[in-house]
Amino acid sequence: MAHKPSIPKGTRDFNPEQVAKRNYIFETIQESFETFGFQPIETPSFENSETLMGKYGEEGDRLIFKILNSGDFLAKVNNTLYASKDSQKITTTISEKALRYDLTVPFARYVVQHQNDIEFPFKRYQMQPVWRADRPQKGRFREFYQCDADVVGSTSLWQEVEFIQLYDRVFTALKLPGVTIKINNRKLLSGIAEIIGASDKLIDFTVALDKLDKIGPEKVKAEMISKGILETSIAKLQPLFELSGDFNAQITALESILAQSEIGKAGIAELTFIHKAISELELETAALKLDVTLARGLNYYTGAIFEVAAPEGVQMGSIGGGGRYDDLTGIFGLKNMSGVGISFGLDRIYLVLEELNLFPETVSKTIDVLFINFGDAEALFSLKAIKQLRLQGIYAELYPDAAKMKKQMNHANKRNIPYVVLVGTEELTQNTFTLKNMKSGEQENLSLNSLIQKVKA
Amino acid sequence: MAHKPSIPKGTRDFNPEQVAKRNYIFETIQESFETFGFQPIETPSFENSETLMGKYGEEGDRLIFKILNSGDFLAKVNNTLYASKDSQKITTTISEKALRYDLTVPFARYVVQHQNDIEFPFKRYQMQPVWRADRPQKGRFREFYQCDADVVGSTSLWQEVEFIQLYDRVFTALKLPGVTIKINNRKLLSGIAEIIGASDKLIDFTVALDKLDKIGPEKVKAEMISKGILETSIAKLQPLFELSGDFNAQITALESILAQSEIGKAGIAELTFIHKAISELELETAALKLDVTLARGLNYYTGAIFEVAAPEGVQMGSIGGGGRYDDLTGIFGLKNMSGVGISFGLDRIYLVLEELNLFPETVSKTIDVLFINFGDAEALFSLKAIKQLRLQGIYAELYPDAAKMKKQMNHANKRNIPYVVLVGTEELTQNTFTLKNMKSGEQENLSLNSLIQKVKA
Repeated sequence: MAHKPSIPKGTRDFNPEQVAKRNYIFETIQESFETFGFQPIETPSFENSETLMGKYGEEGDRLIFKILNSGDFLAKVNNTLYASKDSQKITTTISEKALRYDLTVPFARYVVQHQNDIEFPFKRYQMQPVWRADRPQKGRFREFYQCDADVVGSTSLWQEVEFIQLYDRVFTALKLPGVTIKINNRKLLSGIAEIIGASDKLIDFTVALDKLDKIGPEKVKAEMISKGILETSIAKLQPLFELSGDFNAQITALESILAQSEIGKAGIAELTFIHKAISELELETAALKLDVTLARGLNYYTGAIFEVAAPEGVQMGSIGGGGRYDDLTGIFGLKNMSGVGISFGLDRIYLVLEELNLFPETVSKTIDVLFINFGDAEALFSLKAIKQLRLQGIYAELYPDAAKMKKQMNHANKRNIPYVVLVGTEELTQNTFTLKNMKSGEQENLSLNSLIQKVKA
Repeated sequence: MAHKPSIPKGTRDFNPEQVAKRNYIFETIQESFETFGFQPIETPSFENSETLMGKYGEEGDRLIFKILNSGDFLAKVNNTLYASKDSQKITTTISEKALRYDLTVPFARYVVQHQNDIEFPFKRYQMQPVWRADRPQKGRFREFYQCDADVVGSTSLWQEVEFIQLYDRVFTALKLPGVTIKINNRKLLSGIAEIIGASDKLIDFTVALDKLDKIGPEKVKAEMISKGILETSIAKLQPLFELSGDFNAQITALESILAQSEIGKAGIAELTFIHKAISELELETAALKLDVTLARGLNYYTGAIFEVAAPEGVQMGSIGGGGRYDDLTGIFGLKNMSGVGISFGLDRIYLVLEELNLFPETVSKTIDVLFINFGDAEALFSLKAIKQLRLQGIYAELYPDAAKMKKQMNHANKRNIPYVVLVGTEELTQNTFTLKNMKSGEQENLSLNSLIQKVKA
């Protein structure tokens, strides 16, 4: 191989500093998940294709990475099918496994498969990579991590309340102030569609409404008309386009719009319950905001819908989202299992923290002390000391070769190692260690015990 | 989907207890890696096929999971090739990416690709899953984790010494006594092959010798003869089959066998250096043992070869292995970059700890306290308290529904939750909490502060 090797587009290598920063985010999220009573599960990277296909719409099916069967996979393709040279049709015969597209469908599969071993309500979290054959762009990768927490087996709205607290706790712990937790409710959207006589066009309606922020009310109305929603119906929506004020003021306006819709009123009642509880419990740093245009792409939400926006001024898509789905496990044959969950977008949170320079300085840890190598006798003496340092929790290593002093010191500098220990003939004879502080340049001759105390402090 | 969903063979779901146990092993290994100065990197789950193919032999190529190209992948197959219906030949046209087969080749690719940003010697560790389309059996899966630590950029034998110490530290920390670290040296094997005039048959020779433990000397000799190694040559090996005594005694015997081989003597010198250093530094719980039959499958080792055996009495393949490879990055065009590394077999270590019942009891943590739900007013009051508990690092949650008391208590029992808090009308009025110890059955009425102190202790 003559040319420099590379990696597939949309994928990334992570160097030690990047891994440390990512782990900082993972650990912060994980700590909050566990404090809230969520327990970890893990599922395989690939699933049987039938588990994933048809669960994410046509677009989703296309973006799922398929794994080629092993061996002579074409032998199983019959001649008629083979003659068609139809990639899509032949795929199902030559590929029986596919890479996970998200964590929600594998979780639903897990719950159904292990339902007899699970104690419900089941609070689980999962932090694993997912893969999508999407066109890569800023903040969008072909391999990326999702961090999900879900509860299944209860319809209680207290869980929605808890998830809002959980978002608040994580972003507070990450010292990322000013995030907005947007909330909506699918029942409210259904109510509005009902009122304007477009219940059969709920999806078209919500997809159009979702764009209000981006394209403005006139274009949204035009899109609705193009989808066959009557102009007279859309006229009834005018108050919706003019919603303003705080949470309670918006709820009051919605109450009058939805006075004739049972499902709409149910949505309002849920939103009111959640908002009241959060007002009483108080958030630390995040803000809860009603956003009636919020629909999110996935059609399985049946109640609350969440989306988290980065602080104002940061150009970034949503950094989290979720909602309630009353029948997720139904696709695998288990009915009446309500679930609600949220997701954290690790990769986007990373980009936001990087842009705002919010990673703690101490996050990327190198070793505490490097022992300079002056030859085999000194090296052995040093390794005996290093063994003791390591037992005390100090990160320490010996420069592997008896290279020139300058080279070894440069190595320590380039790796930002705070201390260097010099063991020459004199130290070897006297059983001492010369400790050099790489920042101040200060040098001291110390016993092993003093060395340990000094480096630990 | 009518039938119960399942997962592909050779893959696994992990429930909360299993994840906790696996994380216990990961964290123990990681802590040791970092204490020894290794830094983490991560590489993508899939690589360009050309990066992986041809690096693991024919068998390896066959076992690599290939990913189907997106879109109309068959359009790129020309008619002649398509008419052949040759799965193997068509694969390279319809699949350009493949799942990682191990962590070593991606690491070599990483080093070459990022060589200008790396400060050498570079000590990296990597703990990520790998995938192999192997036939599943006990301790062998299609998706499993590898935990690797390697150093590149130095030929110093002190690194071999450090890796032996690292193995010892990890298995000591896991409280798994009695593991054997077997060591050999490729140069020693080359020397023996040279002495018996079979240098051109080094692979056949080592593959046969590797089976000595399993099939005995006569069958090993028969296999060597079948591979074209002369009987007179094999006769010279007799002392090898009779090696006995401790490390030094075996070295003395090998010195006489290899007196005429420069490369063989170099191997002996390396082994002696490493053994002497380890004797001086002392291992905590593991034993270092010379095993001249140890070759390991991979042909890139050029110096030391390691393999770790589980304690006697546990039926399990090797739980770790590694060695020195003087030219790993050569396959990607970067010459003269010596590397040495070791790997921990997470899944097998798990099975060993499980079999010997060595997981700490505290490893699988549930929540500390469950608040019983008596209705909305009590729930809100409880959540205010729970917020304070969580800020104090206590894992706490509210039962989501105001279900029957018995059902909620059963839930606490099934999850082994140690404490339950009861907040009824009385507690609500008096601003107190009734704490029940689920083990002793003892109940106390406490203030919020006392509750926190009690649960924390």
